[in-house]
Amino acid sequence: MRKDGSRREELIKIATKLFMEKGYRTTSMQDIAKQMGIQKPSLYHYISSKEDILKEIVDITMNRLISSIEEIDRADISPVEKLERIIDSHITLICENLELFTVSLREINRFNAKGFWAHVVALRDKYEYHVRNILASGKKLGYFREDIDEKIIGFALLGCVNWTIRWYSPKGEKSPKEISNQWKKLFLTGLLKNK
Amino acid sequence: MRKDGSRREELIKIATKLFMEKGYRTTSMQDIAKQMGIQKPSLYHYISSKEDILKEIVDITMNRLISSIEEIDRADISPVEKLERIIDSHITLICENLELFTVSLREINRFNAKGFWAHVVALRDKYEYHVRNILASGKKLGYFREDIDEKIIGFALLGCVNWTIRWYSPKGEKSPKEISNQWKKLFLTGLLKNK
Repeated sequence: MRKDGSRREELIKIATKLFMEKGYRTTSMQDIAKQMGIQKPSLYHYISSKEDILKEIVDITMNRLISSIEEIDRADISPVEKLERIIDSHITLICENLELFTVSLREINRFNAKGFWAHVVALRDKYEYHVRNILASGKKLGYFREDIDEKIIGFALLGCVNWTIRWYSPKGEKSPKEISNQWKKLFLTGLLKNK
Repeated sequence: MRKDGSRREELIKIATKLFMEKGYRTTSMQDIAKQMGIQKPSLYHYISSKEDILKEIVDITMNRLISSIEEIDRADISPVEKLERIIDSHITLICENLELFTVSLREINRFNAKGFWAHVVALRDKYEYHVRNILASGKKLGYFREDIDEKIIGFALLGCVNWTIRWYSPKGEKSPKEISNQWKKLFLTGLLKNK
């Protein structure tokens, strides 16, 4: 069982790399088997379909994001600090797992994820709920401007951070920490009430 | 000729709708011909390949964005006002041409656009150049904080605005104007130097 588990993990890793480099649609089960050095029928010992691999990739990425934001939202800190921490955590997760997040954000749409689209939407809703919740409490507690709309500002934050997969390179000139500092200052000074 | 031109426009419109609803990869030339009420071979009178349609969609969307930002960047107004105008203009273009922009942003990647990827990159670079230029002059002229990095803040803006295709619906509760107002205030107060 242990050996099967680690072979399955290897399969996910290899498939993620192929989906990132070649695109989900143009990667075949044959390509994955070849990279693993096994015959195509043997793949089905670990996974039932290509769509199943994609679902696993979404689960891995979204569950990391969700468990991180749940922990932050539970913490006994101000909404300002919560917002700073989710920006840090979200950027770090993307930059440290660039292949997983690129596939998850770029290849997941209602065509490729037809069989589990409702599941994807539910996971996204869960994350968005916490983002909005933090923005709303910051407003209620008098930290953030009263005129902010937590839905529209929440989308701004998600768009800004998720867009990272389109341009970030580990070889680039800016570290995840530097990127995060720029955006934390942008959002915090952009949202804070003038005292 | 005139008739051919308008049939070609119709083809682009029909294909855009199909790519939006079904995805680029899963839409066939046969699907497009059927929607136009013509035989598949007749399609090639107007266009040489499916990839050609995608290229035309990118050209339409990017050229609209670029001509808008060039006009704004040329105008005799402050960088602050320029930034406000590009947020307004970019959001309006996306919301009013949601099918075109969804296909352009979602379906364009180096796999689907293999034959003209350098062209896509050049168009994106052109737009990004102006965004960064406006941010840099705002900093130089003392409007924006000195510690902002125009590249990282430029990506924040692009991510925020382009992400709109993922959630915006014309039937939704917020108008493009309301969305734009939220984001203009976020970016402007987030970037302005304290006087």
